[in-house]
Amino acid sequence: MKARVHVMLKNGVLDPQGEAVRHALGSLGFDGVEKVRQGKVIELELAETDEAQARDTVTAMCEKLLANTVIESYSVELV
Amino acid sequence: MKARVHVMLKNGVLDPQGEAVRHALGSLGFDGVEKVRQGKVIELELAETDEAQARDTVTAMCEKLLANTVIESYSVELV
Repeated sequence: MKARVHVMLKNGVLDPQGEAVRHALGSLGFDGVEKVRQGKVIELELAETDEAQARDTVTAMCEKLLANTVIESYSVELV
Repeated sequence: MKARVHVMLKNGVLDPQGEAVRHALGSLGFDGVEKVRQGKVIELELAETDEAQARDTVTAMCEKLLANTVIESYSVELV
């Protein structure tokens, strides 16, 4: 089973990387870019075949390793 | 209009970051993780309201700045 995890900085947390991208896009002539946030996406291939079990496992992975839950939020999607 | 861009390393390109995550998950006791690939997700807020136009603009941004198309593939999603 494949899972995809999105990890984004929480709203209100400064995102200098996103800000740098926004600035660079402006310099390249792309106008009308109001906001940019950059995050991580992690694709996992799991041996687990049960959907509920897989979701629980991936959520535990996020809490323990993949996301810093103080400043980041995550979402789990099974594909 | 909001757009979300996924940038992943192309298949066949080594992903040491993903490999490190896989290894760390194993060390934490998560068995059955067969493969991990890590990429970037970039969320953009655009002033543009026309969907086709927004997609074209974001594709141009990917080609020029957001993705290194030699080793990375990207996908654009409007939300």
